[in-house]
Amino acid sequence: MSEQRVIRPTPISGFPEWLPEIRSVEQRWLDHIRAGFERYGFASIETPSVENLDVLMAKGETSKEVYTLHRVQEEDGDDSEARLGLHFDLTVPFARYVAQHFNELAFPFKRYQIQRVWRGERPQEGRYREFTQCDIDVINVDGVPLHFDAEMPRVVHEVLAGLDLPAWTLSINNRKVLQGFYEGLGISDPLAVIRAVDKLHKIGDDGVRQILTEEGLSAGQIDSCLELARIKGADRSVVEQVAKLGAESGLLSQGLEELAFVLDSLSDLPEGSVVADLSIARGLDYYTGTVYEAAFDDDPGYGSIVAGGRYENLAGQFIRRNLPGVGISIGLTRIFAKLAAEDRLPAGRTCPTDVLVVVPSDERREEALRTGALLRGRGFNTEVFHQASKVGKQLQYASKKGIPFVWFPPFDDGRPHEVKDMATGEQGEADPALWERPAS
Amino acid sequence: MSEQRVIRPTPISGFPEWLPEIRSVEQRWLDHIRAGFERYGFASIETPSVENLDVLMAKGETSKEVYTLHRVQEEDGDDSEARLGLHFDLTVPFARYVAQHFNELAFPFKRYQIQRVWRGERPQEGRYREFTQCDIDVINVDGVPLHFDAEMPRVVHEVLAGLDLPAWTLSINNRKVLQGFYEGLGISDPLAVIRAVDKLHKIGDDGVRQILTEEGLSAGQIDSCLELARIKGADRSVVEQVAKLGAESGLLSQGLEELAFVLDSLSDLPEGSVVADLSIARGLDYYTGTVYEAAFDDDPGYGSIVAGGRYENLAGQFIRRNLPGVGISIGLTRIFAKLAAEDRLPAGRTCPTDVLVVVPSDERREEALRTGALLRGRGFNTEVFHQASKVGKQLQYASKKGIPFVWFPPFDDGRPHEVKDMATGEQGEADPALWERPAS
Repeated sequence: MSEQRVIRPTPISGFPEWLPEIRSVEQRWLDHIRAGFERYGFASIETPSVENLDVLMAKGETSKEVYTLHRVQEEDGDDSEARLGLHFDLTVPFARYVAQHFNELAFPFKRYQIQRVWRGERPQEGRYREFTQCDIDVINVDGVPLHFDAEMPRVVHEVLAGLDLPAWTLSINNRKVLQGFYEGLGISDPLAVIRAVDKLHKIGDDGVRQILTEEGLSAGQIDSCLELARIKGADRSVVEQVAKLGAESGLLSQGLEELAFVLDSLSDLPEGSVVADLSIARGLDYYTGTVYEAAFDDDPGYGSIVAGGRYENLAGQFIRRNLPGVGISIGLTRIFAKLAAEDRLPAGRTCPTDVLVVVPSDERREEALRTGALLRGRGFNTEVFHQASKVGKQLQYASKKGIPFVWFPPFDDGRPHEVKDMATGEQGEADPALWERPAS
Repeated sequence: MSEQRVIRPTPISGFPEWLPEIRSVEQRWLDHIRAGFERYGFASIETPSVENLDVLMAKGETSKEVYTLHRVQEEDGDDSEARLGLHFDLTVPFARYVAQHFNELAFPFKRYQIQRVWRGERPQEGRYREFTQCDIDVINVDGVPLHFDAEMPRVVHEVLAGLDLPAWTLSINNRKVLQGFYEGLGISDPLAVIRAVDKLHKIGDDGVRQILTEEGLSAGQIDSCLELARIKGADRSVVEQVAKLGAESGLLSQGLEELAFVLDSLSDLPEGSVVADLSIARGLDYYTGTVYEAAFDDDPGYGSIVAGGRYENLAGQFIRRNLPGVGISIGLTRIFAKLAAEDRLPAGRTCPTDVLVVVPSDERREEALRTGALLRGRGFNTEVFHQASKVGKQLQYASKKGIPFVWFPPFDDGRPHEVKDMATGEQGEADPALWERPAS
């Protein structure tokens, strides 16, 4: 075609991209999720894609995954970008947002945030470097009522129920239960145990046992930790199961009470949709109470599709106020990409056009444009074919793009308009000022 | 509150962020723009925020503004991110997308893309480092009918007309007119002149004269170039004005024909909304024909709020096919941020909640939750107050958040539900299964 060098584009690993027919389904999902969040009164915010690095690094663990920004040609002495990193979640930016705009917000502040986040992980199944998260969170001054801990899974359950996903289960735990239990066993560094137990599903009992042995725990302590992690249940019975293990502490009692309250509040959800699972720890350091995690029932190893929890000290890093919060995040890309790869998404459309108006000849173009404008004004997504050409070619275009109706403006003055239903092949007279799409 | 160090968050220059009541207006605008694009049959796509650097650099000028990605702790030997940069517009990624998915797309491929883009510019009024663009483009195999050049401004005009903006004008030109005219004057490097004329509004006649003198143009050639740049008009009369300047070339004739065709096709738009302005050049190298640029009438120096044009050779860099395109971009953030700063946006809401259900006591919580679920099921965005507390406090919350209706479930069994209209103060009996929002 030309002598110039061709730069063959290649997909960038970990950065998903969809064809229009898949994107149309994703867009429908996003609209659905957003409407579901607003149904519960969560307000939309967006934050910049970047934060100052000291904000992103305020709580440590994921630091190595942060992408920093640099300019191709940085000017001498201008290192203003050197401090910027792409956010790796939406919770830290939200906490920063609340602290920064504290005086302009009404509390409790309920927000949703649907944005892309970035993590410099090694790409693998279910792990992306750029992905979209759909978060709801509440932050309040001095205290967040426990009712919100129960509202989070309810909203997510309601929203995802409308997306016809494969069966999934939301597991709930409480960090106070874990920490209080380990304290009750006389363990000096409960956080280290939480981090080890968080790996249980990946490395198994033996792996955890090895780490905890290295941490200096006794065989008895380790047995108790592993026994706790085996406890599951959909109701208050988990409290008694924990009690039987013998550890006692004030924090443990408080955590169990909170966990039981959340389970009670969600008891009207369909059976099996929510379960207490005392092995759930959530690796991120900032959770302090309730924690959530959901996975597909038939593929738990795929990774969590929903996650979240309560954090008491996140926003307080950025302002001298006590601003606890609780929130939950739907890992949209992770869910969506799996279903797309397995061809389990509902059919999408390659274009949003309802009606294609045929242009039989340049003389009839004006009439076609008027018809198109009329149909658009009545709410139909309408294309006027881009050039006068054979009708067969225009029908072929409609068929290729999945446009359901083809409109024939009069070929001669005085003749009527006609419309063809591409699904049934039926064609008949129609008035563009009155036509309604037939019920399918 | 605590002994820990507080990291005071500061706004990051060039990265805008909105309070919820502003964001709600932005969201409404985005929905409106998207619906307007779909009305003309453009399909949604999104591309990753990053591209390989060689894709971004394929056409040169903006290279110094590209942000590249790096990890905080890059592992030895893993330089896979070193080649990634954030996209600086949506046209280059779109061209790459079409080339990459060529065999899976139906042509002419009409897409819209509403995404953030990044440019490492020095922040100043109207210039952001992260901003949202709303683009429509058509790419076709071997040729894009000129009708699409006319469709682009029409769609943008229709979409922006619904946003109640301050007066603005879309200027149109054609690169072939400029290049053909300069060639007709015997100028050897027309692109250099285009780049100089592109600066006319910033540096004035004298500035352009100086650059062109340095380029080796004669005083007569420079006079002609500046005379051409002074031509403006809403119709074919511009063609005669150009003819009077005496330069002649095949490319010039072709460009004038195209320009006149586009003007003719848009003659039904309200007077003054579109004007041919032969000073418009658009700096970016990739435009080859029609170019568009719009600015606010009362603040032309603020910068272009809409821009675009025809590019013959963009997608062809990525595949051995001839894939010309034409497109236009609405600079949403630039428009929106100006109106926000000048307090000219319509009023937005701090939260989407229609109804707040009062929880007078913990015993009545169940009833409140049932009422909330019922109202949600009927399509009302509904919050149930997060804890049992004094009714006055709950009314205050509704008032602070601008929630229009407060619902009182029965305080005692057998008593009726009541709803209070916060705007009028009226309160009366209501059935949650039947209630409709009064027409305002």
